[in-house]
Amino acid sequence: MRPSGRQPDAMREITVETGITRHAEGSCLIRMGGTHVLCTASLEERVPPWLRNSGLGWVTAEYGMLPRATHSRNRREATAGKQSGRTQEIQRLIGRSLRAGVDRVALGERQITVDCDVIQADGGTRCASITGGWIALRLAVNKLMDAGDVKTDPLTDHIAAVSCGIYGGTPVLDLDYAEDSEAGTDANFVMTGSGGLVEVQGSAEGATFSRDQFNQLLDLAEAGRDVLVAAQKDAVA
Amino acid sequence: MRPSGRQPDAMREITVETGITRHAEGSCLIRMGGTHVLCTASLEERVPPWLRNSGLGWVTAEYGMLPRATHSRNRREATAGKQSGRTQEIQRLIGRSLRAGVDRVALGERQITVDCDVIQADGGTRCASITGGWIALRLAVNKLMDAGDVKTDPLTDHIAAVSCGIYGGTPVLDLDYAEDSEAGTDANFVMTGSGGLVEVQGSAEGATFSRDQFNQLLDLAEAGRDVLVAAQKDAVA
Amino acid sequence: MRPSGRQPDAMREITVETGITRHAEGSCLIRMGGTHVLCTASLEERVPPWLRNSGLGWVTAEYGMLPRATHSRNRREATAGKQSGRTQEIQRLIGRSLRAGVDRVALGERQITVDCDVIQADGGTRCASITGGWIALRLAVNKLMDAGDVKTDPLTDHIAAVSCGIYGGTPVLDLDYAEDSEAGTDANFVMTGSGGLVEVQGSAEGATFSRDQFNQLLDLAEAGRDVLVAAQKDAVA
Amino acid sequence: MRPSGRQPDAMREITVETGITRHAEGSCLIRMGGTHVLCTASLEERVPPWLRNSGLGWVTAEYGMLPRATHSRNRREATAGKQSGRTQEIQRLIGRSLRAGVDRVALGERQITVDCDVIQADGGTRCASITGGWIALRLAVNKLMDAGDVKTDPLTDHIAAVSCGIYGGTPVLDLDYAEDSEAGTDANFVMTGSGGLVEVQGSAEGATFSRDQFNQLLDLAEAGRDVLVAAQKDAVA
Amino acid sequence: MRPSGRQPDAMREITVETGITRHAEGSCLIRMGGTHVLCTASLEERVPPWLRNSGLGWVTAEYGMLPRATHSRNRREATAGKQSGRTQEIQRLIGRSLRAGVDRVALGERQITVDCDVIQADGGTRCASITGGWIALRLAVNKLMDAGDVKTDPLTDHIAAVSCGIYGGTPVLDLDYAEDSEAGTDANFVMTGSGGLVEVQGSAEGATFSRDQFNQLLDLAEAGRDVLVAAQKDAVA
Amino acid sequence: MRPSGRQPDAMREITVETGITRHAEGSCLIRMGGTHVLCTASLEERVPPWLRNSGLGWVTAEYGMLPRATHSRNRREATAGKQSGRTQEIQRLIGRSLRAGVDRVALGERQITVDCDVIQADGGTRCASITGGWIALRLAVNKLMDAGDVKTDPLTDHIAAVSCGIYGGTPVLDLDYAEDSEAGTDANFVMTGSGGLVEVQGSAEGATFSRDQFNQLLDLAEAGRDVLVAAQKDAVA
Repeated sequence: MRPSGRQPDAMREITVETGITRHAEGSCLIRMGGTHVLCTASLEERVPPWLRNSGLGWVTAEYGMLPRATHSRNRREATAGKQSGRTQEIQRLIGRSLRAGVDRVALGERQITVDCDVIQADGGTRCASITGGWIALRLAVNKLMDAGDVKTDPLTDHIAAVSCGIYGGTPVLDLDYAEDSEAGTDANFVMTGSGGLVEVQGSAEGATFSRDQFNQLLDLAEAGRDVLVAAQKDAVA
Repeated sequence: MRPSGRQPDAMREITVETGITRHAEGSCLIRMGGTHVLCTASLEERVPPWLRNSGLGWVTAEYGMLPRATHSRNRREATAGKQSGRTQEIQRLIGRSLRAGVDRVALGERQITVDCDVIQADGGTRCASITGGWIALRLAVNKLMDAGDVKTDPLTDHIAAVSCGIYGGTPVLDLDYAEDSEAGTDANFVMTGSGGLVEVQGSAEGATFSRDQFNQLLDLAEAGRDVLVAAQKDAVA
Repeated sequence: MRPSGRQPDAMREITVETGITRHAEGSCLIRMGGTHVLCTASLEERVPPWLRNSGLGWVTAEYGMLPRATHSRNRREATAGKQSGRTQEIQRLIGRSLRAGVDRVALGERQITVDCDVIQADGGTRCASITGGWIALRLAVNKLMDAGDVKTDPLTDHIAAVSCGIYGGTPVLDLDYAEDSEAGTDANFVMTGSGGLVEVQGSAEGATFSRDQFNQLLDLAEAGRDVLVAAQKDAVA
Repeated sequence: MRPSGRQPDAMREITVETGITRHAEGSCLIRMGGTHVLCTASLEERVPPWLRNSGLGWVTAEYGMLPRATHSRNRREATAGKQSGRTQEIQRLIGRSLRAGVDRVALGERQITVDCDVIQADGGTRCASITGGWIALRLAVNKLMDAGDVKTDPLTDHIAAVSCGIYGGTPVLDLDYAEDSEAGTDANFVMTGSGGLVEVQGSAEGATFSRDQFNQLLDLAEAGRDVLVAAQKDAVA
Repeated sequence: MRPSGRQPDAMREITVETGITRHAEGSCLIRMGGTHVLCTASLEERVPPWLRNSGLGWVTAEYGMLPRATHSRNRREATAGKQSGRTQEIQRLIGRSLRAGVDRVALGERQITVDCDVIQADGGTRCASITGGWIALRLAVNKLMDAGDVKTDPLTDHIAAVSCGIYGGTPVLDLDYAEDSEAGTDANFVMTGSGGLVEVQGSAEGATFSRDQFNQLLDLAEAGRDVLVAAQKDAVA
Repeated sequence: MRPSGRQPDAMREITVETGITRHAEGSCLIRMGGTHVLCTASLEERVPPWLRNSGLGWVTAEYGMLPRATHSRNRREATAGKQSGRTQEIQRLIGRSLRAGVDRVALGERQITVDCDVIQADGGTRCASITGGWIALRLAVNKLMDAGDVKTDPLTDHIAAVSCGIYGGTPVLDLDYAEDSEAGTDANFVMTGSGGLVEVQGSAEGATFSRDQFNQLLDLAEAGRDVLVAAQKDAVA
């Protein structure tokens, strides 16, 4: 019934390659089915002006999509002269989500910028960016800890994200593009490894949704989170 | 306990003045406590290029804030040369929310642009914009129907929005700025008059939140919606 | 003979509401007939870089128009990514005009930014902005003086502005949009309460004008100024 | 008494070289003392979209200043990414002024763009641009008439401009930079050859000015205009 | 003697993976040592406006660098709001180079856009982009030919590029970053498979160079080209 | 055979007027046939941030073209809101070329900006800009030396540039526009007075070129350089 033949509660295959760029303090290529995102974490020993002398660190994110990550070519945002509203919304979400798992006192006055660049898109790019971005962040923080630059682990928990939606009337987990473009409701859930909710975003497309349906989506998401966190653990082991 | 002395489930006073600008097809000034938003609905007998000859109409929204709507003056976005990510995120949300209550076939090939300009801000500007924007939209559509330009009412239901949050450990309804800036979790709910969910956005600030807490916020929001829809009915009567 | 039925030397009704936004140090909503402008004065305890350590203050202005202030909707300048030449010309005029009534030594190293946002336009928006902007400025300066932060009143005189033009061959005072769009000559006069000229701008539209005609426009403007200054006095009393 | 030693009613020397660029339909280099402006008129057989099928022509102007036209180098506007408010204000004035001497029906559906680029600045660049811009326009229109493309002369009169001001308490004609930067009042007058006023702009700098003073400035300007129109006649003969 | 221990005439290892993105008509990831570039060719059945109804096709290129492709993070060009001069210069070079091997009549009225995005940079990114871009272009054109959409092969020859320079006084082939940043002269050569020169760019850094030195660089480049063309043949086989 | 009737090795007439703007430390108007470029050198007693306290000076260049320097009018870059890729490429080349003849230690912590503005274009504007730009730079540096502000001459040699190309199958020197637009290959050579190569840029247009042809172009360029350097010596004598 799903275009991919998956069961409603089946996620796509997740693979993670780490250390894929030589320069970044942490990096990975995460693949959730046909969605492939390159995530790098860049460490700088300075914080934005508003945090100077605060003792607090900062984690921020930027998001981009290569022009031909999608079915037809999109105009390059650098050529257009600005980031779209969608891009800005996504990168604000990624940054906010990752910061929810960071102890900024423990990090100290440093900034880590997580760049998520979509190489190939097949739905769920913001969720893959969060999940993969956390891996890059973890690896960069490990480097800091190995060097003795921070004493207490600034990462307080895993952060992972998955989308769910109502496709053909049925709640399904981990929407791909074919489902996303047809789904009646689309929701993204960002969660910690220990079960807390970080971000919840549900959006009706066409028809509205009920509390009951929304709870079913959240049930699916919680199951999905366990798979994602396991993949993160494997990747950074 | 709330800075305003309100009970946890008490909304701020809502007042709506309609017809406040001579030129717009529909307009109102909505006040939710200290948050004042000027909403206008502008009708054009043309649609964006991608909808030409589709038979479908379009409803879109733009959002702005006067430079001194806030405690200290903000730079004018026209001077800065671009809309912030926050502005774009909000206006995308308003447009998406209002479209959830529109039958675009019934509207026909017309565009209605809802402008929401914040005159004074005290928290919850995006929710006030959605609630007031719907009133402006309703008034503009009434004009179309009175003129016989559309036969079937293109508005299928009320659309209203309210924010909730966890303030000092307690779930509270309709956050003002003093609460919003201290809240542990902040959520916006967009709902229809008949009880459907249109948009759900919850965001942890500092601590994560549980499903149980999230459900309490939703309970509050559903109560708030009845107040909002009643105010809308009064305004357009 | 005038579309509004006014006598050639009759101004439109002027009403001023002060204190209309909670946050600004001074504010008013000025209505000159169908032209409604929201004016706020924002005080900052710092000056632009080129005035640092000069002992001089600064007064500047910005001007905007809500998208549906006019008969058909205009594109929002923040969306367009820049202010139009017209907007820049007007805000430069407002700032220059207001500074003509300011003793910048008495003000001290502070900046006051006067924002003039047109809610509804019916001709003469730049003149209403100057006249109303002065009221907001006066109120903000009163606050400074009440607090004892400045000793000598930095405002040396009233500043008020009115447009005149030749409509259907007759010099008339205080053009509304219907007249402005048809007028053969259009002039704006900025004056002090004690009779000095601050800015004089006359522009032929179609036919040129003679010195004699220009003097008749100036006669009308001087009469209009008395009405404007009286309204300012009432508003700030 | 004037820094240049000129009498109050003495203009600077005016020289005009025509035909200085091979490509433009009309061109000149006008020198008013130390102010040198290169003016070109470019003819296109098309009008802006809003004039299509109107039978009317259009004349517009653009203004620029080479980076080192001034005492210290200014940032290039193309590098800054936008034209300053001053530049836009000036080019709007030039265009409006030149159009006051154009019969747009006689011109037919054509556009002439007059570019005024300041090579060296010593005060009065906008006035020199208007006076020189008219010469370039006249030459371009002559070409059109010689080719038989227009039958009736679209230029109805000369258009010339001069600045006056109150320097050291005395009204003086044709301000240079040393005077302009010290003048108490600065005014620009755009006039036709036959004595009509096209644009009048007076601005107080520091002190306000009286009607009497303003009339003295206008007396000076009218004398200056005869010199300018004579120079234009020589140049296009 | 070279930081990498290579002989003066030794190129870095070249590897090419094709078909790395699902959506693009042609794609590859080319690695020249530590320089990794993702190249995609996107086909559109339309040409830029100036080529409509000309019967000619168009090939163009865009170039980008992920923020952390380099040793320290670079600001994202989409965030900066424009492409740097360096980026524009490089993408103009790539487009011009590839077009030198295209029969635009045979291509017909189609456009192929080659996007070159640097994942990891270690010198020579523009050369790797040209060499890899040609592979993506070849694969996209193969698809067109297989579908019978073009009859004559629009690609007339291989296009490949390599940099050479004078490092420590010795002419060397295929500069990596360590060499490039120290080289006295840096040159890029774009050549066809059959020996023609397409682009030659030599630039002195510090000291000038002689004709003799320049000829030695060209000798090295010609040797390098054979390696590159062989790698291209392998990749598209 | 050449459109101009010149021999293959004949340059266009070169004339240089120096001291043409009052404000610049060095300036000239260089004419190479129909290509006329105004060059100014502006001295500032400060360097870009990355050179502060380095003891090194900086020479940079900007390039512009007046809108009607060309056959049909081009859009003003300040209006377009950005410099084109072509403009940026050219000004980077001019700056790099001039710096090759500068001893930045001898210059000390100062910046000289060379502005090259094309008044009339007939091919070879970047070469004329380099040759004329060097003259402006030389004059500005002479002023520094005359004032005793620098002790050792910071200019180590002449820098001059010329274009060559293959027109109608024959290598020719100093392309004008008619040739440039038809040439099979186009190359620019920047050289020092003592024979060193600074920049070499050859580009195939349509057909590729051989090493032999490229060497013939370089032979022509070396002959042309002697003429250019002689003209520079005359100009600054």
